[in-house]
Amino acid sequence: MFKINENYLKLPGSYLFSRIGKRVGAFQEAHPDRRVIRLGIGDVTQPIVPAILDSLHGAVDEMGSSESFHGYAPDLGYDFLRNAIVENDYRMRGCEISADEIFVSDGAKCDCSNIQEIFSQDNRIAVCDPVYPVYVDSNVMAGRAGEYNSVTETFSDVIYMPCTLENDFCPDLPKEAPDIIYLCYPNNPTGATLTRDQLQVWVDYANRVGAVIIYDAAYEAYISEEDVPHSIYECKGARTCAIELHSFSKNAGFTGMRLGYTVVPKDLKSGDVMLHSLWARRHGTKYNGAPYIIQRAGEAVYSHEGKAQLRDQVNYYMKNAKVIYEGLKDAGYTVTGGVNAPYIWMKTPDGLSSWEFFDKLLEEVSVVGTPGSGFGPSGEGYFRLTAFGSYENTVEAVERIKKM
Amino acid sequence: MFKINENYLKLPGSYLFSRIGKRVGAFQEAHPDRRVIRLGIGDVTQPIVPAILDSLHGAVDEMGSSESFHGYAPDLGYDFLRNAIVENDYRMRGCEISADEIFVSDGAKCDCSNIQEIFSQDNRIAVCDPVYPVYVDSNVMAGRAGEYNSVTETFSDVIYMPCTLENDFCPDLPKEAPDIIYLCYPNNPTGATLTRDQLQVWVDYANRVGAVIIYDAAYEAYISEEDVPHSIYECKGARTCAIELHSFSKNAGFTGMRLGYTVVPKDLKSGDVMLHSLWARRHGTKYNGAPYIIQRAGEAVYSHEGKAQLRDQVNYYMKNAKVIYEGLKDAGYTVTGGVNAPYIWMKTPDGLSSWEFFDKLLEEVSVVGTPGSGFGPSGEGYFRLTAFGSYENTVEAVERIKKM
Repeated sequence: MFKINENYLKLPGSYLFSRIGKRVGAFQEAHPDRRVIRLGIGDVTQPIVPAILDSLHGAVDEMGSSESFHGYAPDLGYDFLRNAIVENDYRMRGCEISADEIFVSDGAKCDCSNIQEIFSQDNRIAVCDPVYPVYVDSNVMAGRAGEYNSVTETFSDVIYMPCTLENDFCPDLPKEAPDIIYLCYPNNPTGATLTRDQLQVWVDYANRVGAVIIYDAAYEAYISEEDVPHSIYECKGARTCAIELHSFSKNAGFTGMRLGYTVVPKDLKSGDVMLHSLWARRHGTKYNGAPYIIQRAGEAVYSHEGKAQLRDQVNYYMKNAKVIYEGLKDAGYTVTGGVNAPYIWMKTPDGLSSWEFFDKLLEEVSVVGTPGSGFGPSGEGYFRLTAFGSYENTVEAVERIKKM
Repeated sequence: MFKINENYLKLPGSYLFSRIGKRVGAFQEAHPDRRVIRLGIGDVTQPIVPAILDSLHGAVDEMGSSESFHGYAPDLGYDFLRNAIVENDYRMRGCEISADEIFVSDGAKCDCSNIQEIFSQDNRIAVCDPVYPVYVDSNVMAGRAGEYNSVTETFSDVIYMPCTLENDFCPDLPKEAPDIIYLCYPNNPTGATLTRDQLQVWVDYANRVGAVIIYDAAYEAYISEEDVPHSIYECKGARTCAIELHSFSKNAGFTGMRLGYTVVPKDLKSGDVMLHSLWARRHGTKYNGAPYIIQRAGEAVYSHEGKAQLRDQVNYYMKNAKVIYEGLKDAGYTVTGGVNAPYIWMKTPDGLSSWEFFDKLLEEVSVVGTPGSGFGPSGEGYFRLTAFGSYENTVEAVERIKKM
């Protein structure tokens, strides 16, 4: 008689964004006349830029002829893309990463949830609190998180590192040494950053205690300040302790295109075993590559025209971030983020809980954000707004909130 | 100090097709003048058909405008694709499957390796021998296969069901009841099929012992005989015991496009828990959908023009299958498969091992096939050739082998 993976049953409720989606759907059905503005889920709204569209059309044409047809992709990605990544995201920033340390995938969400598989079940994970839910949930599903406590809203075997206004959303080093540390900077959901020196402290710590850092750099394209690192490999010693995750979703609007990559340096080892070999084995056995046409689109992200067009797109979203940040600040809210990240993180007013403020915003002004408590207990009393809407909608949403 | 998943180290050697790729690469480098014909890995060679190309171009254009841009896809796939699947692959065959039981993904390889996650670690799996390596390897990586015995080339906790000439490549019911049974028909690698009545025996057995059947229907488009089922849901009672996997790789040439789907009927339960809920949770948490443009391509597979063009493509490959089957038979080889499947399965001559015959074929006539032993111990002494080459290459490969 077959038995299920009981760990799945430990997950509280449904995935955060599914839950929000259902709530908004029900509201919209009850109020078909109200125009809802969604600044909740971090989905982009601007179209794919022309340089990438050209590349896509070209690749589709290639698939239509026997001579240029592409079947199964190389396990770890096409060289044309891996080389472009290394050149632009690493060499030009002085980071020593080689093309065969790049693993192309269908997105950072898959990679950050699959990466835990190459570690043994008794590793202890540490996460920032609040945190992107997938880091914790994927470990729960693997049986690595222990038991859920519905009062504290935490798992018994996870080390939570609170990030609040009090510590400027930068976690302290944990008291008990973790084996795997998840860090995401620029941060989702708080929009906070670490400086290069602050990140170096974490790299040194990881090397000292023998921990691996899973560094999620999905939002690096939004960095505007000089002392904020784009990659953890800008820190000394990161090659022996860090795996880095990248997304094309936010820098190139690929949320519906699905492309990402993960870097596993060959110097990152457990005894004689390179984590690189384990991740390569996972890719070869359980994955079959990103579509050829999507990998060609990824290559165009690094072309001269692509870069220029995407710089404009990022600037467009960052203009939205400024509108939200300044508008809410003017209205008397306590607001952070939004300078090196497309996320604005605010304190809920009047002691409202995150979900209470979610309901208030939805019901009174038909604006959707994300309850901070959905990202972890220390997110309670906070609320996330994203800069990924259209400019017009963003301006209107802020006006509506200001009038509340 | 972090620790790795030691189960990965139990995997013998590298993934079969990576190993073949390296061997052929080395041969080609040593003999740059020899024209190698590859009938090894099951990769297709014919271009994407015009109806699907049109759909791809149209979807790319949609991504280029704010009004028609698509970001994150619905967790389980777009309705336009799920509805087309249900209508064509199920309703038209009299199978009772609904659209919300369809989970769209980036391919059957990912699904067949991820599906084991929703089961507990102490489930016992049964596989045909020989078998597509991913079924076993994904369970090894999850710690469900026990220890590897390098003499017998088997894992201690896996139930192997030999499929050889003696039983016409149809396995007997296992002596000890498994919890999870992997079946793939039309079969990879043997090209064998089960009739509807034969498959009904397995469905009844699974319902009787409380096992789940993971039914891999990746090759159903190649079925030419009336009494061979296209779906396990053609059998009575399958909704309470079977999960079905589908690929677009072989029926539509999508090996480089990446699209597949999995069916989990809501009647399939462990106590009160629907496997459907667990798989939905996995999709929502660890996956982010197949690209919009690829899902539109999948929709075009079911259009009137798409169907007609793909029927021609399947016929093209099946003509190849006939050339290989009849050519090798004429030359005195013992050959099976090739009638309802794009795979031809042959006995190696003169008592050669599978890898000895692989080397002989590569070195003497520069033809690449797949050693049967790579699919499991009962595959030793067999060899697989695929019908996915071009017609000209297939004819030439067979001529070369006949002259050997």
